[in-house]
Amino acid sequence: MSSLNPNLVATFPPPVMEARRWIEDATFPQDRPLLNLSQAAPADPPPEALRRAMADIILTDPAAHMYGAVLGLPELRARVAGDWRRDYGGSITADQVAITSGCNQAFSAAIATLAGEGDNVILPIPYYFNHKMWLDMTGIEARTLDTDDSLLPDPHAAAALIDARTRAIVLISPNNPGGVEYPAPLMAAFRDLCRTRGIALIVDETYRDFHAVNGAPHDLFVDPDWDDTLIQLYSFSKAYRLTGHRVGAIVASPTRLAQVEKWLDSVAICPTGLGQRAALWGMENLRDWLAGERQEVLRRRAALHAGFAVRPDWTLLGCGAYFGYVAHPFDRTSDDVARALVDRASVLVLPGTMFGPLRTQGGTGRAEATLRIAFANADADGIATLFDRLDTVTRAGL
Amino acid sequence: MSSLNPNLVATFPPPVMEARRWIEDATFPQDRPLLNLSQAAPADPPPEALRRAMADIILTDPAAHMYGAVLGLPELRARVAGDWRRDYGGSITADQVAITSGCNQAFSAAIATLAGEGDNVILPIPYYFNHKMWLDMTGIEARTLDTDDSLLPDPHAAAALIDARTRAIVLISPNNPGGVEYPAPLMAAFRDLCRTRGIALIVDETYRDFHAVNGAPHDLFVDPDWDDTLIQLYSFSKAYRLTGHRVGAIVASPTRLAQVEKWLDSVAICPTGLGQRAALWGMENLRDWLAGERQEVLRRRAALHAGFAVRPDWTLLGCGAYFGYVAHPFDRTSDDVARALVDRASVLVLPGTMFGPLRTQGGTGRAEATLRIAFANADADGIATLFDRLDTVTRAGL
Repeated sequence: MSSLNPNLVATFPPPVMEARRWIEDATFPQDRPLLNLSQAAPADPPPEALRRAMADIILTDPAAHMYGAVLGLPELRARVAGDWRRDYGGSITADQVAITSGCNQAFSAAIATLAGEGDNVILPIPYYFNHKMWLDMTGIEARTLDTDDSLLPDPHAAAALIDARTRAIVLISPNNPGGVEYPAPLMAAFRDLCRTRGIALIVDETYRDFHAVNGAPHDLFVDPDWDDTLIQLYSFSKAYRLTGHRVGAIVASPTRLAQVEKWLDSVAICPTGLGQRAALWGMENLRDWLAGERQEVLRRRAALHAGFAVRPDWTLLGCGAYFGYVAHPFDRTSDDVARALVDRASVLVLPGTMFGPLRTQGGTGRAEATLRIAFANADADGIATLFDRLDTVTRAGL
Repeated sequence: MSSLNPNLVATFPPPVMEARRWIEDATFPQDRPLLNLSQAAPADPPPEALRRAMADIILTDPAAHMYGAVLGLPELRARVAGDWRRDYGGSITADQVAITSGCNQAFSAAIATLAGEGDNVILPIPYYFNHKMWLDMTGIEARTLDTDDSLLPDPHAAAALIDARTRAIVLISPNNPGGVEYPAPLMAAFRDLCRTRGIALIVDETYRDFHAVNGAPHDLFVDPDWDDTLIQLYSFSKAYRLTGHRVGAIVASPTRLAQVEKWLDSVAICPTGLGQRAALWGMENLRDWLAGERQEVLRRRAALHAGFAVRPDWTLLGCGAYFGYVAHPFDRTSDDVARALVDRASVLVLPGTMFGPLRTQGGTGRAEATLRIAFANADADGIATLFDRLDTVTRAGL
């Protein structure tokens, strides 16, 4: 029997696939159908105008069916650079932009350029599980950084974790799973720390388009030397509902992107021709539509806030973009609670244990106490239904 | 300045992108336009019926736009298993099939399940450059296995290279870059060697659909225990002209695919919904069309054979699927020759140095002496033009 890489064997399996298996064999009462708030994914396909544009590309643009440049469609790279200059200020050029097959790939590519076996990377907890998985399977230590109940990481605490083998600190804002939006000065403080210590600051802005702040969420790009330290990750999946087409981006120095090109060539060859053209079409034509989508997500966020505000048994630790991160009232681990919510409430959410060590370094046990609710998948009725069902199980016990 | 992973820095850049740069700034005489025989990619988009089916999927199937299962669309996995049973004989089930975003990803995922830093994997030379790149960047030693002028690897020579850290032998048949088709008994001998030594046999069959042999090209799947040793890689890109949609496959044990699932979740989340549905539609509807495509490629192959047979200055070492691998007559390295062919003949082919060490272990210097011609991109007229231009430079010298 041929061998298995022990680093990969020791990596936990994909949580979303695990959660899918929970509901695969479940049956739900007719009057209580499944409310799936597990995965951060738009519930609907792209808007009709974009779907029509995509069908037209399929029928009329032969290049969309063929290999493209490894680092992406030049027009899309240029468009990202231009829109970023408009939105963040500062200087961002097309050669500082690479297109990837989704934002998980952007992360794994970025890490591949930075670190190897025996190095370490700092992740605030709760972390995004795929970040932890990628580090685990590539033999890079994920050095977890505790956060307080505001879910904000502390640069001083991070500084204490850095050693000679530390290659990067990873921030996600708006945060997955925490929902919390990192204040601009906090992000600048992390950038200063990383620059001083000669390590990279990776900022994953997958959910940027749904940030509650109007205008630039940080001023990291205004720094003329931003690309000596900053690596920004982005996803087109949420903004234009293109999850199934796999389009993301890395914004970083051309020197780093020359290394990214090698890695992507071996892992993907190129992002899909159609997905990239759809993303470009979206950027060119759907700005107003996206602004409306953002307002809708912000309304849902307000509904989640309001709902938990009057339910003192539950504590909403963070809420933003697609996610609410909430401490549950049950004297059971979040794993048990999440499974029981499927059976007893037909609600699928992910347990905190998927986003952090079973026991945090501070011993707070927050992972067992919390759930991630991907609320943006639910409309106002869905969020009202969620609260009705949570009330029922809160009263009855699990 | 943040760091760069030294393994990645030491990896050579993507050869196809390098070759693209050679022609980027070149201008070609009007009566001698570029003949690009560098990349193994269909020159045309998918047939119209498939493009229409894809446009219809875009407009009518919301699921095609959304995340799917990490290991791929269940219907496509089942279809691959069924067609493989028909084509290869033996038992292959859907849970032994994973869909990937192209065959480079299939290779990198397979290696990730097998090996880590400090392990080694055996590649016959000439190798496929992305295989070498992936091993280099992940800190796995690519242990090169010399081949003779038939380009066939010898299992006894391979056996002598195996040590305690060897995890796999990689065979590509029909071969990229060599074009040679490995005889079934040779592949069985490699399987036996791998099984005896407890390592994996990776067989990359990207070009299987254009194999000159009618019927199964090997009997590896007939072995009831095939999945203890064999990992087969496949691509839908060439058969259905879906290069830009990135769809490939790994056929291996369910135990290994559980590890593949973790890796793919972190690198891709899922193959694209559209690409997978297009591949499935192709398998269901384009069997006769593909048989015709194969006949056309075999005609082009015969034309390449015939052309070199009457040109004794050139030696065709291997010819099959998309590739001819030929020793050139010039007293210059293949790098120089390939560059000069762009300038002097408006022909882009790849030099042997992209497919092997500058000096082979046997000291034959074959890498400097050879060129890979991706002839399947050219029709009969294109192949005639190729020979006219080669004759001109052969007579005039480079």
